[in-house]
Amino acid sequence: MSAPRFEVLRIATSGARLGRLTLAHGVVETPAFMPVATHGSVKGLTPAQLDEVGATIVLSNAYHLAQRPGVEVVRALGGVHGLMGWSRPILTDSGGFQVMSLAGLVRVDDDGVRYRSHVDGRQGFLRPEDAVAVQEVLGVDIAMSLDECVPASASPAAVARAVARTSAWAARGLAVRRRDDMALFGIVQGGFDAALRVESATALLAMPFDGYAVGGLSVGEPGEETARVAAETLRLLPAHVPRYMMGMGTPRDLITFAGLGYDLFDCVLPTRNGRNGMLFTREGRLMIRNARHARDPRPLDESCTCYACTNFSRGALRHLVMAREMLAAQLATLHNLHFYLRLMREIREDLAAGTFPARAREAAGAWA
Amino acid sequence: MSAPRFEVLRIATSGARLGRLTLAHGVVETPAFMPVATHGSVKGLTPAQLDEVGATIVLSNAYHLAQRPGVEVVRALGGVHGLMGWSRPILTDSGGFQVMSLAGLVRVDDDGVRYRSHVDGRQGFLRPEDAVAVQEVLGVDIAMSLDECVPASASPAAVARAVARTSAWAARGLAVRRRDDMALFGIVQGGFDAALRVESATALLAMPFDGYAVGGLSVGEPGEETARVAAETLRLLPAHVPRYMMGMGTPRDLITFAGLGYDLFDCVLPTRNGRNGMLFTREGRLMIRNARHARDPRPLDESCTCYACTNFSRGALRHLVMAREMLAAQLATLHNLHFYLRLMREIREDLAAGTFPARAREAAGAWA
Repeated sequence: MSAPRFEVLRIATSGARLGRLTLAHGVVETPAFMPVATHGSVKGLTPAQLDEVGATIVLSNAYHLAQRPGVEVVRALGGVHGLMGWSRPILTDSGGFQVMSLAGLVRVDDDGVRYRSHVDGRQGFLRPEDAVAVQEVLGVDIAMSLDECVPASASPAAVARAVARTSAWAARGLAVRRRDDMALFGIVQGGFDAALRVESATALLAMPFDGYAVGGLSVGEPGEETARVAAETLRLLPAHVPRYMMGMGTPRDLITFAGLGYDLFDCVLPTRNGRNGMLFTREGRLMIRNARHARDPRPLDESCTCYACTNFSRGALRHLVMAREMLAAQLATLHNLHFYLRLMREIREDLAAGTFPARAREAAGAWA
Repeated sequence: MSAPRFEVLRIATSGARLGRLTLAHGVVETPAFMPVATHGSVKGLTPAQLDEVGATIVLSNAYHLAQRPGVEVVRALGGVHGLMGWSRPILTDSGGFQVMSLAGLVRVDDDGVRYRSHVDGRQGFLRPEDAVAVQEVLGVDIAMSLDECVPASASPAAVARAVARTSAWAARGLAVRRRDDMALFGIVQGGFDAALRVESATALLAMPFDGYAVGGLSVGEPGEETARVAAETLRLLPAHVPRYMMGMGTPRDLITFAGLGYDLFDCVLPTRNGRNGMLFTREGRLMIRNARHARDPRPLDESCTCYACTNFSRGALRHLVMAREMLAAQLATLHNLHFYLRLMREIREDLAAGTFPARAREAAGAWA
């Protein structure tokens, strides 16, 4: 297999770009949104349905998969693609975010992350070298370097220490890399301190990563802070590689940050909110449990062509939610991902036509 | 719309027959198995997936739908077909089985069934006239007459009383029937007493039903009793109408009772067991949680062509079960229904070719 390749096809005056990312398992047109499949499954959808709604790459999590079912099991089952029944590209995060979100279960030192498994209680130790090796065994298309992600409330000293560790870990991971068909991305940390973001980016840019991500956002900060750091950090990143904004966002965020020049996004919003009965529509959020939808024969979103909207009414979906039928989560997830992936397609079509973000705004409706 | 029609195309020496049931929403080749969609959804599958695995008719429950979302809501949403997003035939049971299984919540007298809703605690009263009217509003293809179903442990007097009530209710329901595009089936009761089965069948056969069901089986009795009553009752039923064996069964049961001459079946086994990690395969039952499947790269059933078997290994499905991913239930349900519906197709192909039950036995494998 050949090495991963990224081409920038067109750049808008805003800085937004249309790109093509060629990976071991296929081509991803960018800007792209990655549905979240933390444990190896986008909750509620078969891979065939994922394909049907337009997903070209999904996000999984090497830290979780290494705990369950375990790296050797995944290898025996044909790698993460075999495990997931998904033949297109897969990106895995390596565990930096879990270091933060499972804080009670982990302890970080310069060598790596000591954790107690939330699955079986066993002690584990994840070093940056392991993170790269694990992702190579999993057979992912894009691996993430092990980083230390800190919450918005972290002290300046903690943020500075996380930046230093993230840089040191990045170099250690790169040093043990063996597969040249797997892209490896570095993650810029630095919290909300512009100087630390510069320090982090400078260190990582000196290393031969295939792409760069902005981490440590969406960790409890106000939206203006997210936007400021996203814009400041983007200016530090090279233009010829993919730029990935981790954990974002709302439909408006996607237009905003694709507009700045980010290429990749992931977020649990469309899937998690779908399971909770919140639908993304052009008119804004629709809370399907609301009694006013009970007799409403209209589709969830009148402009939508997804399977849920062409076969089910608001009233029908509300019934399935109230009756606690699994199909409710399946349909809501399918619709929400269709909404997100249509938006990304409109962004790309706008960029190709030189009209960005006209059609994307229309696709996002009230969210724009 | 024209009236329902049933044609017997071929009869085997065993009594098994190949038939064609033409209903308001389409044609059902018989013998047919109806997946169970009690609350308006086959748990875990979209209607498109149901269609893909070969379902031509599904079973829902008028008693449950009348409680939630309510008959007027279903009407507003385009009837039960609109509610379910399913355009092919639908049969509804009317509540007789619930009279038994929700015994603490219902009280039966000669007039009908008084119940306390398990949804909102409200008192309700279901008379046989209501059962027919409700199913007409729902717009089902086949409605069931309201019956009184009693458990295997019922006293002879209780069984006799249930037979008398079921006959009286049958006449009352037929008397208020208005739609001639909806088939209406009577249900033979009588427990495990041959004389009472004769009494029940005699009374119902004098009424202009479009088909007959055998009820009151699979209610806690030994398998030999089921088989005896199924065979005895079948001989009482006319040959020119569909004969429906309610609540059955295992793959072996389907071959056995289709072999006797039953035309329609329903059962929760493939769906409920699928959600609990039990798979129907040619080699017999496969409990996917078992640790020995963890690294097994083989499909669930090596002879199976379903989406789950062509895209997922035993190890992958086990991982999804252990990680409590919704997709596990979806895939297991899809596979099990594919297994059941393939078996029914083989039964029909055997009947058409005059080779019944050769290929069906092969399709059922260890279950035959």
